[in-house]
Amino acid sequence: MSSSQYLDRVIKALQIMPGIGPRSATRIAYHLIDRRKDDALVMAQSIIEAMEHIKLCQHCRNYADDDICLICQSPKRSVSSTLCIVENPSDVQAIEAAGSFGGLYFVLHGHLSPIEGIGPRELGLDVLDARLDSGDIKEIILATNPTVEGDATASYIAAIARKYSINVSKIASGVPLGGDLDSVDENTLATSIQNRRPF
Amino acid sequence: MSSSQYLDRVIKALQIMPGIGPRSATRIAYHLIDRRKDDALVMAQSIIEAMEHIKLCQHCRNYADDDICLICQSPKRSVSSTLCIVENPSDVQAIEAAGSFGGLYFVLHGHLSPIEGIGPRELGLDVLDARLDSGDIKEIILATNPTVEGDATASYIAAIARKYSINVSKIASGVPLGGDLDSVDENTLATSIQNRRPF
Repeated sequence: MSSSQYLDRVIKALQIMPGIGPRSATRIAYHLIDRRKDDALVMAQSIIEAMEHIKLCQHCRNYADDDICLICQSPKRSVSSTLCIVENPSDVQAIEAAGSFGGLYFVLHGHLSPIEGIGPRELGLDVLDARLDSGDIKEIILATNPTVEGDATASYIAAIARKYSINVSKIASGVPLGGDLDSVDENTLATSIQNRRPF
Repeated sequence: MSSSQYLDRVIKALQIMPGIGPRSATRIAYHLIDRRKDDALVMAQSIIEAMEHIKLCQHCRNYADDDICLICQSPKRSVSSTLCIVENPSDVQAIEAAGSFGGLYFVLHGHLSPIEGIGPRELGLDVLDARLDSGDIKEIILATNPTVEGDATASYIAAIARKYSINVSKIASGVPLGGDLDSVDENTLATSIQNRRPF
C-alpha cells in the first residue's frame, strides 16, 4: 500500500517515457520529491510549455517555436540551396550533432505506408513539391532510414526532384565506424562490398 | 543547432532525473512530442500537483496527501502496535512491495550525521519519542540501512525505546536470497556466519 495518491499518480505517469518501467519510475519519483522539488516543477513547466506551443515549421515541418523554425530562420542556413530529407525530427538532431551538414532540412514525419493510410500528402510531399518548384533548391540529400519503407519513400521523392532537374544523392550505407567487422549484420556487409569505393 | 528552444529546455530539464543523460533525455523528449503529447501533459500536471501538495504525515513523517498519510489512516494498520523505522520514504515502498509487514512506519528522512548537522531533531526523533511515550507502540523494528551511519542511528533509537520498555528488534543482515555465495561481499558473508541460526 502507498502513503500518497499524488505520488502514485506521478509513478504511473512517468512510465509513458521510453525505457522507464515501474521500478525506474518509482526511483525517479522519490528522487524528485526527496531532493529536486524545484527542479521537478521547472521540468514539468517546460514540458507543458513545449507540448502547448511547439508547432511544425512552415518551411521544413521540423518542430518550431514560431511559424519558422530556428534552423530555417538562421541567416547562415537560410541561404543554402541543399535540402536534406529525413523521416523524423530526431534525425535532424542526430545529423546536427554529427556537425557535417550546413544546409536545410525537410522532415517527413514518417515514411510512405499505404496500409496505414500514409500517402504523399501525409508526409507533406505537396509542400516539398511546391518548395522545389520555387527554384531555391539545387540539391537534395535523401537521409531516410535504411529500411524498405525508407528506401521506397526516397525513390518517390527522387522522382519528384528529377521533374525540376535537381541533383539527388542518398547518404552512404555500409559498415559503421569503430567496432568489429564480424559484429556487422550480413546485409550491411554485402551492401558495403557492393558500394565499395576506389581507395 | 536546434530547431526549437522549447524542445531544448525540455531536453535539459529531463536530465534532473537519475539515470537520464543527454542522449536518453533527447530520446524521451522526441518520443513525448512525437507520440505522447496528451500523456506528457498529464505527467507534467501530476508532477506539479505532487510537488505542490505532498507533505509529511504528522504521525510517521512519510509523504502524505493530507495531514495523515494513507497508511496511518488505514483502519487495518492504525490499530497496529508495531512500528518499523526506516531512513527514507522509498524504503517504506520497498517493504510494502515485500508484503510481509502489516504494521506502521516511522520515516527518519536520513541518518544521524553530526558533520552534516543532522541530529535527533532533524530526524524527527522528538516526534518519535512523544509517540513512544503515548504507550500505543509495543514493538519497534529497526530497518535503517545496513551501514555504519544506519547502525549508529538504530542504536540511538533503541536507547530511546528502552526508556519505555518497548521491544526492539533489527531486520536480519546476511546473504541475499538467490544468486551465488561467491558473489556476496566478505563483510556480508562474515555477518551471515556470525548471525547463523539453528536449522
